[in-house]
Amino acid sequence: MHIKKQRLLTPGPTPLYPPALHAMMASDLHHRTEDFRKVYQACVSDLKEVLATSYDVVPLVASGSGAMEASVSNLFSKGDKVIVCVAGKFGERWEGITKAYGLEQVVLREEYGGAVSAQSVAAALAANPDAKGVFIQASETSTGAAHDIEAIARHVAATGAILVVDGITGVGTQPLKIEEWGIDVLIGGSQKAFMIPPGLAFLAISPKAWARADASDLPKYYFNLKKEAKNAAAGESSWTPATSLMLALAEALKYIKSIGMDKLIDNAQLLAKATREAAAALGLELFSPGSPGSAVTAIKAPAGMDSGVIVKGFKQRFGAIIANGQGSMKGQIFRIAHLGYFDFADLFAMVAALELLLISNGHPVTLGAGVTAVQRVYAEAAGIKV
Amino acid sequence: MHIKKQRLLTPGPTPLYPPALHAMMASDLHHRTEDFRKVYQACVSDLKEVLATSYDVVPLVASGSGAMEASVSNLFSKGDKVIVCVAGKFGERWEGITKAYGLEQVVLREEYGGAVSAQSVAAALAANPDAKGVFIQASETSTGAAHDIEAIARHVAATGAILVVDGITGVGTQPLKIEEWGIDVLIGGSQKAFMIPPGLAFLAISPKAWARADASDLPKYYFNLKKEAKNAAAGESSWTPATSLMLALAEALKYIKSIGMDKLIDNAQLLAKATREAAAALGLELFSPGSPGSAVTAIKAPAGMDSGVIVKGFKQRFGAIIANGQGSMKGQIFRIAHLGYFDFADLFAMVAALELLLISNGHPVTLGAGVTAVQRVYAEAAGIKV
Repeated sequence: MHIKKQRLLTPGPTPLYPPALHAMMASDLHHRTEDFRKVYQACVSDLKEVLATSYDVVPLVASGSGAMEASVSNLFSKGDKVIVCVAGKFGERWEGITKAYGLEQVVLREEYGGAVSAQSVAAALAANPDAKGVFIQASETSTGAAHDIEAIARHVAATGAILVVDGITGVGTQPLKIEEWGIDVLIGGSQKAFMIPPGLAFLAISPKAWARADASDLPKYYFNLKKEAKNAAAGESSWTPATSLMLALAEALKYIKSIGMDKLIDNAQLLAKATREAAAALGLELFSPGSPGSAVTAIKAPAGMDSGVIVKGFKQRFGAIIANGQGSMKGQIFRIAHLGYFDFADLFAMVAALELLLISNGHPVTLGAGVTAVQRVYAEAAGIKV
Repeated sequence: MHIKKQRLLTPGPTPLYPPALHAMMASDLHHRTEDFRKVYQACVSDLKEVLATSYDVVPLVASGSGAMEASVSNLFSKGDKVIVCVAGKFGERWEGITKAYGLEQVVLREEYGGAVSAQSVAAALAANPDAKGVFIQASETSTGAAHDIEAIARHVAATGAILVVDGITGVGTQPLKIEEWGIDVLIGGSQKAFMIPPGLAFLAISPKAWARADASDLPKYYFNLKKEAKNAAAGESSWTPATSLMLALAEALKYIKSIGMDKLIDNAQLLAKATREAAAALGLELFSPGSPGSAVTAIKAPAGMDSGVIVKGFKQRFGAIIANGQGSMKGQIFRIAHLGYFDFADLFAMVAALELLLISNGHPVTLGAGVTAVQRVYAEAAGIKV
């Protein structure tokens, strides 16, 4: 009642893994030393391991958007035709970046909450055999929708285009088999399933994508992927690295390896499933019922209720930060995150709180109905007969 | 499922207040400096404020048991007759300390789960007019029972005896009006309602108690309360202080002041009430139904079930550390803590988890029944009509 713990429950920054946070305290070191080189190399090597790829993985001191820009400025040339899949605010970010660099855009647009289908991408590739790339989100964080990257990648792999996947909230919440499916660039960010603060991003880059880098004529300096990849192999960064974040990442990656990436994904998927069932039990509608992802579940506020009252209620009554909708979705939806360091105890508490917030804002629900739905998903997964 | 956050949910150490934890990082300082003196003085001054007393408050680098010993060795003399109230493992600690120092004991013993009544104390004082002191727990952490310190203090105040109260889990969970009621020594510990790690204890000491110190002939050196009180007034400690813990305490006390001690107590009392109602809803019995405290609620395992399976289940299935019974109570009870940095979101999660653990161990309950009981207590306190 009077104690309200500050709980960060957004789809990024996500809750911090405490040993990773504590590891940042060791950043009283210099980055051009053998000690730090080992940390850097361990991060790159562990990133490759958890992403299950032999491709180069290039870390950048940037948020995910910086890595998105780097993929454009390093692997494309002025006037290149590209297919841009847009189904939310982050799809729009691809649109903005490719426009800023003067690429010729073929935009495949779906309404918020929807997803661009593999068939649409296949059709666009057939209609644009000169397309040099396809840009997409694995998980569209703004709506909670996921794209069928496996099917889309198989289409793109059969062409000369490269597939650039913003996996910023997709990594760790849905399978992304880079080499098997044919993903050419996969982008991730530290403050997502990696459980550490914002400030680091990385790209896994296929040979097919690298082949584009030499010819790329777009302006770049700080985000120089070739230079960064070469340095990373030697445990170095081109510029001063964010040492505290690398120390945190090293610790978080140890934890993720100890769990296993498949289990981390399963964890998010179970929480997402439980959240969907809780929403149904509480008479709430999903914003992306057709292609729900497991990074975050966007739930529509009941008719006549601004979703902001739920978001504010979480903060004011329970100290918890949850996400509202972005842009035009603000006020329409609220978002329950699952990616990274989230567990069922978090969800029990969030749903119990949500029930009280719904009631206090005029949407009657049966107390405990949502929590019970979450408990049932847990019990089924844990082999507890209820 | 796969992510299980480590949650420390015991009645001490209690969950840490994160800014206090982070403040410990500033302990790269020397204790004989003006900077640290300010921290020390602020802690002493804020302790007096939150305890609402003008009495001296003396910090010690020790756990609570050290402060308990200090109260005996500094304020009594060999062969003094004392009344020792024993209703659990911590009452037995008073018995052990007073015996070790050769005091003459009049033990008022109640069975575990019970409480020593004010009438018993009054009768013992009447039968032993030469008693020099009364030792008691405000909250007997091992059983969850609370003593009626107000009534007991009024009886003791009318005699020449001093009342020494172990308030280690009582401070911040039940009202303890030191001067108004006539408490002579009140003992607290850092790892309880103060939300920081173990290692610091403190005593508030009345003039009536101080009057005993000069005559005290018991051996003491490290725990020298007079010396410590004199030094504390100048922002100093007699020995090297635990600087990191003082930095943490300073931060935690700011937070406690911002909430208000009465609200902190109300918070624990509401959580305790909600826990008792959840237990009832789940068909579980309390271990101290007659005098339940608000620091911790001890719940009996269902007939035929070892409480250890609940404790282990919390750890293995949910990553949470909760307390088993101590001594002969081990296996019989488990304990849900409320003191310090606990909130309703913690309790929603704990009770939802408990329901699943009960079912998985053969005690059928209606899923959500306990959580709903907790939600109802929250709703009533928050003015939400359910």
